[in-house]
Amino acid sequence: MIFRKSLLASSLMAVCLSAAAQWETLPDAAPSPENNPMSEAKVELGKALFMDPRFSKDGNISCNSCHNIMAGGDDNRPNSIGFHDQRGGRGAPTVWNAAFQSVQFWDGRAATLEDQAKGPVANPIEMGMESVDAAMLRVKAIPGYAQLFKLAFPDDKEAMMVDNAAKAVGAFERTLITPNSPYDKYVKGDKAALTEQQVKGMNTFSELGCTACHSGVNFSGPKMEIGQGFFMKFPTFPDTEYDKKYQFSKDLGRYEVSKNDADKNMFRVPTLRNIALTAPYFHNGAVATLQEAIKVMAKTQLNKDLTDEQVADLEAFLNALTGEFPTITMPRLPATPGFSVIGIEGAGK
Amino acid sequence: MIFRKSLLASSLMAVCLSAAAQWETLPDAAPSPENNPMSEAKVELGKALFMDPRFSKDGNISCNSCHNIMAGGDDNRPNSIGFHDQRGGRGAPTVWNAAFQSVQFWDGRAATLEDQAKGPVANPIEMGMESVDAAMLRVKAIPGYAQLFKLAFPDDKEAMMVDNAAKAVGAFERTLITPNSPYDKYVKGDKAALTEQQVKGMNTFSELGCTACHSGVNFSGPKMEIGQGFFMKFPTFPDTEYDKKYQFSKDLGRYEVSKNDADKNMFRVPTLRNIALTAPYFHNGAVATLQEAIKVMAKTQLNKDLTDEQVADLEAFLNALTGEFPTITMPRLPATPGFSVIGIEGAGK
Repeated sequence: MIFRKSLLASSLMAVCLSAAAQWETLPDAAPSPENNPMSEAKVELGKALFMDPRFSKDGNISCNSCHNIMAGGDDNRPNSIGFHDQRGGRGAPTVWNAAFQSVQFWDGRAATLEDQAKGPVANPIEMGMESVDAAMLRVKAIPGYAQLFKLAFPDDKEAMMVDNAAKAVGAFERTLITPNSPYDKYVKGDKAALTEQQVKGMNTFSELGCTACHSGVNFSGPKMEIGQGFFMKFPTFPDTEYDKKYQFSKDLGRYEVSKNDADKNMFRVPTLRNIALTAPYFHNGAVATLQEAIKVMAKTQLNKDLTDEQVADLEAFLNALTGEFPTITMPRLPATPGFSVIGIEGAGK
Repeated sequence: MIFRKSLLASSLMAVCLSAAAQWETLPDAAPSPENNPMSEAKVELGKALFMDPRFSKDGNISCNSCHNIMAGGDDNRPNSIGFHDQRGGRGAPTVWNAAFQSVQFWDGRAATLEDQAKGPVANPIEMGMESVDAAMLRVKAIPGYAQLFKLAFPDDKEAMMVDNAAKAVGAFERTLITPNSPYDKYVKGDKAALTEQQVKGMNTFSELGCTACHSGVNFSGPKMEIGQGFFMKFPTFPDTEYDKKYQFSKDLGRYEVSKNDADKNMFRVPTLRNIALTAPYFHNGAVATLQEAIKVMAKTQLNKDLTDEQVADLEAFLNALTGEFPTITMPRLPATPGFSVIGIEGAGK
C-alpha cells in the first residue's frame, strides 16, 4: 500500500510538471469525427431532438431536462429525475464542452457523443423508452422530422434512423462551447481579465497539484484519442472524514461496467469549466457547495488540508472558468397535426 | 328539459347569427392591463421565469414543461405530469394566444394571466412548492435575478416580489401570439391562402353552428371584459355514447370552484387556434385525434351526426388555424455560483 501510494505520488508529480508547463485555452470549435462532419442542417435537427420531450416514455423528459443548456448544462440536482420520478445514483454531467471529452458518462462507458446520446433514451430510470428503436418510431410518426433528416443526411436513402439521430445530437452538442472565460482571456494575454485573487488561486491550483488531473483545454485531462479515457481513482485517499460523510466510495465507478478490479472507484476526470454553475458536486451530487468541494478534492485526492485563504483563492479562480454562452434560438418542434405521438406504442399504432 | 333545450337552441341561434356575421383575425399584439404595461425588460424577465425549473419543488418542472412554447404551448398529454409524477384531472391548455382569453384555466378561476401564473407553482400536484412565497425565496437566492427585476420594475423600491414575478410572466405570455394563419390571411383578402376544402370546412363550421361558441379573434367566444368568462356547458347533450366512452361529465368544471349549481359542467370555451398541434383533446384529454374531437363536438354540443365529408372538411379548416410562431431565443437562466437553490428550504437556508 505504501509502495502503491509512492508510485502514485511520483506519477502524479510527473504529470503535474508537464501539465503545469502550459495553461491551455478553449478552442472556438470542437473536432468532429470523420463519419459525422458538421453541417448547419445537422445542428438544427440535433437541437430539435435534444429539446423534444416526446422521445421519453411519458413525453415529459428531453435531453435538456437534465442537461439544461439554458443553465450550466446540468440540472443542479444531486441526481436527475427520470421516468416515473425515478432517480439514479449519479448526477447529470454538464453537456457544455462535452465535445472536448474523449469519453462520455462518469464511467466513460461511451466513446463518443453519438454513443452517449443513445443511452438515456432507453434507460428505464431515465427517459424510459423500451428501446431506441421505439423512440425512433415516434420520430418517424412526426411528419416534420422527415424533412429535417433529409436535409441533414441528404446522401442517405433512408435518413431516419437511430444512428443519424445520434449523429445530429452529437453535431448539435459540438456547438455547445463556452469560450472566452476570464481565464481564457487572461491566458491569451489580457492580464486584466483576472482579479489578483483569481491569479493567486490559479497559482495555488497549479502548486497544489490540481493540474495533475485537471489539465488540458477542458480541465479534464490531457488530450487523448476519442474512446481513450482519462480516469482517476476517487477518492484516492479513501479513509477520510469526507468519505464517511459523503459516501463517495460506495459507487465503484468504471468497475460497474468493466468488472475489472483495477477500475474500482475509477471515474472519468470531469471538466472544471463552468463548475460554479453546476452545484451540487461529485458523481453522487453529495456536496452542496463549491467551497466544500474544493476542500474535499484537496483531502481525498492530494491528502492536503487547505487554509481558508487557499479555499477562497481557489474558488475565485474556478469562478473565472465560467465562459461565454452562445445565444441559441428555440427550435420549433415538428408537429403532429391532429394527434399526439405520446403513448402511440401502447395504442398499437 | 325540453323547454330548457329549446331555450338553449334559440339562444345559440342568436349568438350564432351575430357571430357568423364576421370572421375576425388575430391581432399582432395583445392588450395589457393598466397596471402591467409592456416592456422589453419585463418580457425578458418573464421568459427566464417561465423557462426556469428551479421554482418547482424538485427543480425539474418549469411553466414550459407543461406549456411547451417550442411546440403547441401544451404537452400533448391527456394531463400533465407534476411533482412526484402526480397527474391532475385536466390537460394543460395552450399558452399560445392565452392573452386573448378573458379568463384563464379550464374553469376560468383566474381573471388574468398574472393571476394564473401564480397557480401551478404552489399546486401540490403541479410544481409542488409550499407557497409562492417559498418560490420567491428561491428567486431571491439567485443573484442574477435581482438585476432583471430591477430593470423590469425600475420604480419599485423592492422589485423582487411575487406580484412582479407574475406580472413579468404575464408580459412574456402576451408576446406569445401566432398571427398570419392561412385562415387569417384568407380573411384579410388572400383568397389563395385556403384550399377549396378548407373554405368548404369554414362554411360548414359556420353553418353547423360551431361559431355559436367558437367566435372572436381567438375562436373562444366574443370579446369580453377581462375577468368575465365565456362559459359553455360541456357536454350540452349529456346522454351520448361519446360521454359514456370518454366520461366528460364526471368533471363538474366551473362548479368545482363556484359550488353554484348553475355552473355544473360549465367550462371556459377553449381557443381553436393551433388546435391541430394540441392533441389529445378536451378538458380531460380523453380524445386522441382531432377527427374524433370534431365528431364529439358536433354530437355533444349540437346534437348532430356529421358525414365523413363534413368531418374531413372541418378538420381541413381547423388545420388552417395554425399560425406563425415567432422565433424566440433561449434565456440564460441566472446562475448561483457555487451552490444550488434546489432544496434550500429543507437545508434551512
